Amino acid sequence: MKRTRVTLRDVARRLDVHPSTVSRVLNPRTRSMVADAMAERVMEAVEDMGYRPNPFAYSLKTNRSFIVGVLIPDITDPLFPPIIQGAERTLAGAGYTTILADTDNDPERQRVNFEIMRERQVDGLIIATARFEDPVIAEHRGGDIPMILVIRTINDPAMPCVINDDAYGIGLIVSHLAALGHRRVAHVAGPQDVSTARVRHRAFEDAMRKAGLEPDPSLIQFCCSFAEEEGRGAASDLLERGETFTAIVAANDLLAIGCLDALALFGKRCPEDVSVTGYNDMPFVDKIQPPLTTMRIPHDEMGAMAARLLLKRIEGDATAEGSISIRPELVVRASTGPVAAGKK
Amino acid sequence: MKRTRVTLRDVARRLDVHPSTVSRVLNPRTRSMVADAMAERVMEAVEDMGYRPNPFAYSLKTNRSFIVGVLIPDITDPLFPPIIQGAERTLAGAGYTTILADTDNDPERQRVNFEIMRERQVDGLIIATARFEDPVIAEHRGGDIPMILVIRTINDPAMPCVINDDAYGIGLIVSHLAALGHRRVAHVAGPQDVSTARVRHRAFEDAMRKAGLEPDPSLIQFCCSFAEEEGRGAASDLLERGETFTAIVAANDLLAIGCLDALALFGKRCPEDVSVTGYNDMPFVDKIQPPLTTMRIPHDEMGAMAARLLLKRIEGDATAEGSISIRPELVVRASTGPVAAGKK
Repeated sequence: MKRTRVTLRDVARRLDVHPSTVSRVLNPRTRSMVADAMAERVMEAVEDMGYRPNPFAYSLKTNRSFIVGVLIPDITDPLFPPIIQGAERTLAGAGYTTILADTDNDPERQRVNFEIMRERQVDGLIIATARFEDPVIAEHRGGDIPMILVIRTINDPAMPCVINDDAYGIGLIVSHLAALGHRRVAHVAGPQDVSTARVRHRAFEDAMRKAGLEPDPSLIQFCCSFAEEEGRGAASDLLERGETFTAIVAANDLLAIGCLDALALFGKRCPEDVSVTGYNDMPFVDKIQPPLTTMRIPHDEMGAMAARLLLKRIEGDATAEGSISIRPELVVRASTGPVAAGKK
Repeated sequence: MKRTRVTLRDVARRLDVHPSTVSRVLNPRTRSMVADAMAERVMEAVEDMGYRPNPFAYSLKTNRSFIVGVLIPDITDPLFPPIIQGAERTLAGAGYTTILADTDNDPERQRVNFEIMRERQVDGLIIATARFEDPVIAEHRGGDIPMILVIRTINDPAMPCVINDDAYGIGLIVSHLAALGHRRVAHVAGPQDVSTARVRHRAFEDAMRKAGLEPDPSLIQFCCSFAEEEGRGAASDLLERGETFTAIVAANDLLAIGCLDALALFGKRCPEDVSVTGYNDMPFVDKIQPPLTTMRIPHDEMGAMAARLLLKRIEGDATAEGSISIRPELVVRASTGPVAAGKK
């Protein structure tokens, strides 16, 4: 499709004014430098001729694209849309456009998308795809593109990020279960190359010990991804092996939903036979059967915080905070209950 | 943050070759024109000097941005992430980057986002925010940016779109309910400025008549948006007014979930007292209580189709199909059942 572009010079020529006059009228910051009557004539001509400013030329001049890239591991995981929405609203308010890429949880796609973002000369990146050991982030973090991690972080406390306090959250969950009398508690852990899964697993063991319960390695099952079918598989393995337990701490809501599937398949009732907890309080987990006990995280607010931190860095604010860690909130619903008398 | 950019000329100067040699090596289509040893030297220098091709300069030259814009009314509605994912994968495969904007169901934000996309000189737009009467789309459709509507369409059958056959889908739902003995069927309709809601409402009345059931206007309740709380309000109104009905056809899943909330609040059981149907088969409606009878739409595939149609138009394929209408599939779950003996 061929486009014939009306240029700033065309508009100036038609009005017989200098191009800088047109340019001044079009820039909100300089419009007041031009008399109202002239500004009106310019706007009429711009409208009439269908002139549009050329952001590529502008970007060449300012060396800034006003584009921010957002890398998401899986946009169909209900956890991420609120983060995107929160970040996008904040960025749009500051005049930035958001480019989104979904890496499908694939490190190779993350690398490719990272390169595409660089080629688009994004002014900054919000990254929700970080792995704990992440060669792509490690490689670029000393570079010229500011980056903020969100939800997940890397193996370096100096890396700027907006995360929730996973250890605190898992601590609350284990205390809640211990108070209900659970002693044999299983953990369906997430992929250990991701910080959230890794921290939650370690926090589970620590919190169990703190509650006076020795974590049993045979009750810890690792998943390859945060997906419902992985949770179903992990809980099925525990049940097939005939392990005895009265509660499952799943590393997130999708894994917890998979655990509920497995319990139903094996004829176990939740919470009468086994209590189950999730993490994230993603949409609709209050509607499932049974409604899920989980940790609530303000995802949209975390997206907005990540955007604000990034904007400060883009604008070269040396006093910008490094990282933010948010305390999540325990939401108790019907998927957790007291241990049945005979099972304590 | 100041960037000093290494140019193609810098690389050429260091190697004492013509810039066009560097350019040829960097373009996969012309790399074979350069001897292997030279290509290797060029790539080493590119790597070493941190040279990155400048897409703005490239875009100025080709007048193409290789960016496609996607407008979404609400990214937290579980209907849209699979559409975005389907479109983004297809576009990425063709070398295009996706820019996403969430309009928050606000016509004014749609207008602003539309302008931002134009300023970014997107090569095309995939639009999921269309209203039936849509001045922004009407204004731009004769312009130079190809557009494909997805899910929702406008009041013009010539506008290219990828939609599902809403009339067919609602027909299947009404037949299903009629076969279960339902005669007093309510309709919780969506916002009538959106094609899906509008077509579904009309199809509901047509299908009722076809089934030999006169639709009762007092059983039709209109909502302002496709949101759970709107569905809850609409069903509550019907129940408060003391209307008698044994089934609700909700215009989508979120409205249906709101109807289930209202039934529970009023002490009505689903499906024993009232059957409820949704539309979309969005994630997790098979997990809610009761699991929802709904229409399944292949959202990711529709996103991919929209992307393919758009790519053809961007590349100027005059034979490109205009529009695609997909037949949805009825998924019967526990939220619909036969009318209780006393209520027929």
